[in-house]
Amino acid sequence: MRLQDRIDSYPDFPKKGILFRDYAPLLRDPEALSFAADEFVAHFGADRVDAVVGLEARGFPVATAVAMRMRKGMVMIRKAGKLPGRTRSVSYEIEYGSDTMEMQAGALKAGDRALICDDLLATGGTAAAAASLVEGSGATVAGFAIVVELEALQGIKKISKYDVNVLVRY
Amino acid sequence: MRLQDRIDSYPDFPKKGILFRDYAPLLRDPEALSFAADEFVAHFGADRVDAVVGLEARGFPVATAVAMRMRKGMVMIRKAGKLPGRTRSVSYEIEYGSDTMEMQAGALKAGDRALICDDLLATGGTAAAAASLVEGSGATVAGFAIVVELEALQGIKKISKYDVNVLVRY
Repeated sequence: MRLQDRIDSYPDFPKKGILFRDYAPLLRDPEALSFAADEFVAHFGADRVDAVVGLEARGFPVATAVAMRMRKGMVMIRKAGKLPGRTRSVSYEIEYGSDTMEMQAGALKAGDRALICDDLLATGGTAAAAASLVEGSGATVAGFAIVVELEALQGIKKISKYDVNVLVRY
Repeated sequence: MRLQDRIDSYPDFPKKGILFRDYAPLLRDPEALSFAADEFVAHFGADRVDAVVGLEARGFPVATAVAMRMRKGMVMIRKAGKLPGRTRSVSYEIEYGSDTMEMQAGALKAGDRALICDDLLATGGTAAAAASLVEGSGATVAGFAIVVELEALQGIKKISKYDVNVLVRY
C-alpha cells in the first residue's frame, strides 16, 4: 500500500510558509490505518514494547492503533495543564520561545520500554522532549513510530540514538 | 471487568469546584482498553457503522480503539483552527461564552453512519454540536459511545434522540 497517497498537503497552514502534511486521510481509511499500525508492530515487535506513548493531539490516534495491535496500554503526553494529578514536565524550544509537555507520574513504571508515536517528525524538538520525559520516569525508549518525516528539517538528528521507524518521507 | 476501577477522580481540576474523571488509567491498561472497545462494538455493531468520529483530544484514543476493532476509519473533530483545508464548523455554548469545533469537508460522505466517541458526557454541549456537524455533512449519527457520564449534569437530554452507550456513570 502506498501510504503517501493517504497524506494530504496544505500550503501555508497553520501559517504562511508552512507546508502542512495531514495524515487525516490515512486515519479515515481503515485499510491504511491497519497497514500503518502493522508496519510499526512488525518493525518494533510487541514483545519488545511495554507501553505505547502518544503525543498530543495528532499522535493519539496512531499511538492507540499501535497499542491495540500490540495489546499494550496507551499513555498520553499532553501540553501543560491538561493532565490532572501529579505530572512530570519538560520544556523545549519551539520556533519562538518554548513550550511545555507533561506526562502523569506513574503512567510508566521504571524499566518500561515505551514506544513513542507521533504523526510528524519536523524539527525533532517535541520528539526529543518526549524521550526525556519517558527516561525521566525511569522507563526506556523502545523507539519512535513516526508517520511522516520532513527530512529537510533534520529532526532525526535530535533522536538519532533511538530506533526511529518512519512510514512516509518528504 | 469493573471499568470504574480504571477511572481516577481529581477534585478541583481543571479548576475549583470541578471533580475531574480521568480515563487515562483505562487507556494505560490494555485489557480495559480492549474491553471498553469491545463493549461499544457489541452495542452498536460494526455492520451498522461506516465511520468512527473522535472529539478532540481525549476522544481520539477511544475512537481509534473502536475504529480498529470495527475495521472502520477514524475521523477527527477538532477545536477551531486545527484542521487544514476546507472545514465545516459549529459553535456551541460553554460555561462562559462559546466555543467552535470543526470537521474537514469530505471527511464523511452523505449517508455515512457515524459513531461519535468521547471520554466524557458532561453538559452535552459538545456532543450535540458534534451531532450537528455530522448531520450537516449529510451523514447520520449511528450513536454516541461515551466512556464516562456525569449524570447530575443531564447532558444525556441534549442527545436523547440518539442511541447513547455509556460504560461508567457517576
